[in-house]
Amino acid sequence: MAEERMTDALERFRKIVGKDWVFSGKAVESYHDPYTISNEEGRYKARAAVAPDSAEQVQEIVKVANEFRVPLWTVSRGKNFAYGGAAPVLSGSVVLDLSRMNRILEVNEKFGYALVEPGVSYFDLYKYIQERGLKLWLDVPDPGWGSVMGNALDHGVGYTPYGDHFGVQCGMEVVLANGEVVRTGMGAVPGSNTWQLFKYGFGPYVDGMFSQSNFGIVTKMGIWLMPEPPGYRPYMITFQREEDIEQVVEIVRPLRLNQVIQNAATIRSLVLDAALFATKSQYTSDKGPISDSVAKKIMADQEMGMWNFCGALYGPPPITDALWTVIRDSFSKIPGAKFYEPKDRKRNPDILLHRADTMKGIPKLTEFGFLNWNGGGGHVGFSPVSPTTGQDALKQYRMVSSRVREFGFDYQGLMAIGFRELHHVTVIVYDQSDPKEREKLDKLFGILVREAAAEGYGEYRTHIHYMDMIAGTYNWNNNALMKMHQTIKDALDPNGILSPGKSGIWPKHLREGKKP
Amino acid sequence: MAEERMTDALERFRKIVGKDWVFSGKAVESYHDPYTISNEEGRYKARAAVAPDSAEQVQEIVKVANEFRVPLWTVSRGKNFAYGGAAPVLSGSVVLDLSRMNRILEVNEKFGYALVEPGVSYFDLYKYIQERGLKLWLDVPDPGWGSVMGNALDHGVGYTPYGDHFGVQCGMEVVLANGEVVRTGMGAVPGSNTWQLFKYGFGPYVDGMFSQSNFGIVTKMGIWLMPEPPGYRPYMITFQREEDIEQVVEIVRPLRLNQVIQNAATIRSLVLDAALFATKSQYTSDKGPISDSVAKKIMADQEMGMWNFCGALYGPPPITDALWTVIRDSFSKIPGAKFYEPKDRKRNPDILLHRADTMKGIPKLTEFGFLNWNGGGGHVGFSPVSPTTGQDALKQYRMVSSRVREFGFDYQGLMAIGFRELHHVTVIVYDQSDPKEREKLDKLFGILVREAAAEGYGEYRTHIHYMDMIAGTYNWNNNALMKMHQTIKDALDPNGILSPGKSGIWPKHLREGKKP
Repeated sequence: MAEERMTDALERFRKIVGKDWVFSGKAVESYHDPYTISNEEGRYKARAAVAPDSAEQVQEIVKVANEFRVPLWTVSRGKNFAYGGAAPVLSGSVVLDLSRMNRILEVNEKFGYALVEPGVSYFDLYKYIQERGLKLWLDVPDPGWGSVMGNALDHGVGYTPYGDHFGVQCGMEVVLANGEVVRTGMGAVPGSNTWQLFKYGFGPYVDGMFSQSNFGIVTKMGIWLMPEPPGYRPYMITFQREEDIEQVVEIVRPLRLNQVIQNAATIRSLVLDAALFATKSQYTSDKGPISDSVAKKIMADQEMGMWNFCGALYGPPPITDALWTVIRDSFSKIPGAKFYEPKDRKRNPDILLHRADTMKGIPKLTEFGFLNWNGGGGHVGFSPVSPTTGQDALKQYRMVSSRVREFGFDYQGLMAIGFRELHHVTVIVYDQSDPKEREKLDKLFGILVREAAAEGYGEYRTHIHYMDMIAGTYNWNNNALMKMHQTIKDALDPNGILSPGKSGIWPKHLREGKKP
Repeated sequence: MAEERMTDALERFRKIVGKDWVFSGKAVESYHDPYTISNEEGRYKARAAVAPDSAEQVQEIVKVANEFRVPLWTVSRGKNFAYGGAAPVLSGSVVLDLSRMNRILEVNEKFGYALVEPGVSYFDLYKYIQERGLKLWLDVPDPGWGSVMGNALDHGVGYTPYGDHFGVQCGMEVVLANGEVVRTGMGAVPGSNTWQLFKYGFGPYVDGMFSQSNFGIVTKMGIWLMPEPPGYRPYMITFQREEDIEQVVEIVRPLRLNQVIQNAATIRSLVLDAALFATKSQYTSDKGPISDSVAKKIMADQEMGMWNFCGALYGPPPITDALWTVIRDSFSKIPGAKFYEPKDRKRNPDILLHRADTMKGIPKLTEFGFLNWNGGGGHVGFSPVSPTTGQDALKQYRMVSSRVREFGFDYQGLMAIGFRELHHVTVIVYDQSDPKEREKLDKLFGILVREAAAEGYGEYRTHIHYMDMIAGTYNWNNNALMKMHQTIKDALDPNGILSPGKSGIWPKHLREGKKP
């Protein structure tokens, strides 16, 4: 896009939001990908950013963007650093930064929901609820600074019974590419009293279209909140051997399906959790993945297992007691399994306590302790979805961990338990300042994606650098689904101004070899 | 559409599906609305029907329909008689009858799901599960002959913890208007092993677009099934006074939010339930709504309340015992409340037993006993969504019942308990053979819709005759949502061949006064 036209467009944006809220030059650097993967010069670089304060300003911005054909890359808070932060797929895009729109429009204790703008973080919403003493719990992902809305729209997960964030979303306001504002579900009834209570409304249920997509800009979203339960019991179970993952997951599946495991619990690998409160250099000066003997040393030192299951029970004592008995009996079948409630942790109590906070919806950033494991600070998540079977879990673990180790990294993974599937999330921590390490990581990631797809596993979410690659694995019947996305994209956003390349969806003028 | 072209098109359809599977003339009458409301001659009349046996045949049919511009009205089984059965909104449409596609492609006990074609009824799926002794329960709506897929796509509800049928849908195959087939969610990964396990896939989550819509033809759908619980306790609580509904619903809300009420329980009005096993003439020969004294007589005779709460507990005895204690204590606060488990019903045990079957997922047709109440056989459902507050419940009840009675009908309503909302469903039973009664009903229905909308209540589902009317109440911001639906409709189905008028969505050539 011609520099002169961009200058004019930015000037028009300044008229809409005020000159303090358009960023360019040096000021746009904070929108760059914090953990770059690509070594290609100039990729994923925003040209500028514009930060509106209201849906009306978003409407005005969209009109100007259409007029000047400015690509807008929408972020709620842009704090999901493992997936690209606020950086656009298409360099030269203007980041539409919604973090100023951070109003908590309503928190309803009676019905258990909040209505929020995109810029509201988990910290913000938690503080609001605490200050008012409302008997509601959030469900939080690990980055407490993230956007409540952004996380749900990206199909993010947390760790309470409300862990499926898009599943507890209810009602949206969306600014379309043509500047029109729609309200979904019951919100389309003027004066509606059930916008945040009932999802479906009348006619097509369209909310999902605006998740992981570039079909519109969500400016308000309802999210259901869990009533404070009458009791809470976090627990941790450790398992000694790598191959225990098979039996663990076979035990997990029926317990989860039958709601004995009530929450989106996690099965966490040794190094992922060990890294939270320790560094690799405390245990070894060797480069490359840790050896078995080092693993054993860490396990003994930190009183952890090769796998560490963190769950929690919610409800009155007679019910949680009954559930705990079933859980304990079930996992006791695995030789070497050890059971902990917080009081039982003589050593390293924080390993359970920090999860205990998260599993009751207290937003934190402690999980990112793992970044200190071997320095370098970069990390990226590889996140295939797997059936909840022991066989798949073991296969996934072996496929991923062997490749990760082959490339010299430690395996830091977790399996988050959904209703019928596992999210197997492996974080790869790398030295982002080293181009060779970036190249190595990039090569590894491509292999992981291809090998997973060959076995029928697809990723649920990804870094901006891999959006095309992952979308390319969802190619059944000659990319029929992507073609449909493109048809919808072209209809709703004919000029292709909204987040080009998001989730692999490109507007017409950038498809078929026309990508820069 | 010219008769000659239609004749040619039907000939082409015969070549695709075989001559036995295209119906016209007398044979198409079975596709007419079984309970006509409109007195206008020729409305809602299909011109023909075509019944394919496979998704491939659906693809071929769609191509011919595009070539000849034949409007296709898609039905799964067409058995939802209170909402129009198999009849099209647009007269002259050809019904695309998917009832022959009735394959149960998979029932997976380990993960609790089924993958079905559109023609699979609840009876079919139940039989399949029983014959194999699988430890899975269905969730069924009242019409057991209905389509598992059709009901979910129409946002139907049942009565177990899996009562939100679209909420437990997972993965679709859809034939688009252009004849392309897409698979949604994880189904877009070739060889996927999680198509029925994880809903969201990668990128926009589009399944909801195909519910209550005319954007595509769903040919396969996954649905989650509940593992057989280790215990089951149905119960019934009766309340003596009309105004008790206020306190009942205030008690229900926190119990449901906290999962003490585990299922989509129902609060049922006296006449709705009394009508199941008795007729009006047994109690009175008066025309018009029953008097208070007759109501009292029915209550005593059938051992029922003015409101009858039917719920069930699912789980092992220690847990259901604990939950039952809370439920009993909570509702005991209402003077005159009476509590029944099946063993406690000395008189009229069936009133609880038939619900007990439904709440454990046994498909039946017993609910339609209410049609015999005063003869005439026609019925239509008025179904606004309401917040779960006592105030709203009482207001809704008064608004609807007073109008219904003013027009000479008995109030036969229920409030089905969702997570945070009530579906207030009133069935109006009328003599469909009498044009005057139809006219009266039609006038009443219009008033109910308008009065509800004025108070912010919208309907979640409706009869074909009212689709435009209801869609018109979802008109926030100058019909912005409908305009978006139309944009998507025109992009995915430019010739407007799929179910014109469904949910008030019309293709371009039939919009803006161009409707017949």
